[in-house]
Amino acid sequence: MSTARRRARDDDPRGDLYVLTLHHLEYSQSFRILWLLEALGAPYELVTYERARNTSLAPPAYKAISPLGTAPVITDGDLVLAETGAIIDYLLDRYPSEQLRPAIDTPHRTRYLFWLHAGQGSVTPLAMLDTLFTFIKQRVPFFMKPFVVPALNLTEHRFLKPRLDLLLTKAERDLGQAPWFGGEAMTAADIVLSYAMESAKLRGHLTEAHPNCRAWLERVYAEPTFLAAKAKVGQEQMVLLR
Amino acid sequence: MSTARRRARDDDPRGDLYVLTLHHLEYSQSFRILWLLEALGAPYELVTYERARNTSLAPPAYKAISPLGTAPVITDGDLVLAETGAIIDYLLDRYPSEQLRPAIDTPHRTRYLFWLHAGQGSVTPLAMLDTLFTFIKQRVPFFMKPFVVPALNLTEHRFLKPRLDLLLTKAERDLGQAPWFGGEAMTAADIVLSYAMESAKLRGHLTEAHPNCRAWLERVYAEPTFLAAKAKVGQEQMVLLR
Repeated sequence: MSTARRRARDDDPRGDLYVLTLHHLEYSQSFRILWLLEALGAPYELVTYERARNTSLAPPAYKAISPLGTAPVITDGDLVLAETGAIIDYLLDRYPSEQLRPAIDTPHRTRYLFWLHAGQGSVTPLAMLDTLFTFIKQRVPFFMKPFVVPALNLTEHRFLKPRLDLLLTKAERDLGQAPWFGGEAMTAADIVLSYAMESAKLRGHLTEAHPNCRAWLERVYAEPTFLAAKAKVGQEQMVLLR
Repeated sequence: MSTARRRARDDDPRGDLYVLTLHHLEYSQSFRILWLLEALGAPYELVTYERARNTSLAPPAYKAISPLGTAPVITDGDLVLAETGAIIDYLLDRYPSEQLRPAIDTPHRTRYLFWLHAGQGSVTPLAMLDTLFTFIKQRVPFFMKPFVVPALNLTEHRFLKPRLDLLLTKAERDLGQAPWFGGEAMTAADIVLSYAMESAKLRGHLTEAHPNCRAWLERVYAEPTFLAAKAKVGQEQMVLLR
């Protein structure tokens, strides 16, 4: 699939041959776009960028192509597009799928919309905040630790954890009614949530109180298109704990 | 508009009369939904909840109705829906507007998608992180301040500010090509960004380097539907600095 080439769109002024390219930063949110491309059966090329060994930062080559310095980013002819949610809607516009994006006025549309947007607008920012706090706590000079660590722990306890718990409680309830975040079938909402949910699991937020979330994550790990994406990058996890 | 009532939808099993209700928490992200309802000319009822005087927290009545304890939330018959992006797409499904949500294959669709999703997935989380850091710095006990404040300042300097600057730089460029985030006309992407951009301005992030962003914010403040929403809540600002 990654070597497929297709004719330029009619609106491509150059009339070149090109193929949509996913610029994948290893262990990053861009894995989800790889999974979506596999789920859509869309033609694409994959370019993978490794993180720096010591800092885990994206390499200069990635920052040069990504307008915000963040993953994911795709290029499609002259278009350079960042931001997970935007890339997902763009790909679903180009390769329509009634399964992956339930249509307006279908039964699961609202549930799909909630989790698609909550995934990137709430769950992922909380996962990133969790990562950021861990990062600060590890790197703060030793003489500051006795003060900085408790302040951040208190913020986690009062701000981050209650919000994440409410989201996970709602996830438990919804996944008790239907197996996927978008309802009866796997949708783009499930793809969006995969990264943050694996992160939540690796950081110990998915407990015995969350059997439905854990079962959902096992369904993700067994999904053929997820496995196809995983085989492309050859890594066991989406998330790299630092 | 807020007292308009309309017949239940065909799929309302009770056949009751009801009207979509916006539960607005003052000085919160829910103002944007009020603006969208005005821009759509949709029938709605507005219920406003005041924040606690001393803590600025949402009152228990709001938390009781909001499944995640966050603003915004709408109710529509039996439906209770949270999450800004989901509510926006839900309302645009029910009250379609080619202007507010550019259709697939129209020239500004991709630009619209980028800013709609970047608004809630990147700009707003950074604005919230900014608020959270300010909150921690103000409330940390005095003997911890000499350690906690520099650690958070360093994180702001190395993590938050570079990301916000890249987003604002891209905003400057895009707003130099067309007056609104969604292109030639005001769209839901502009509505999404209004809260975080006012927050960025109030916290001093919009400087002389951002004339297009400042001019855009003035266009927002002059928009008749924005003014209609503002008149409903009777407050000068969207954002309450704490």
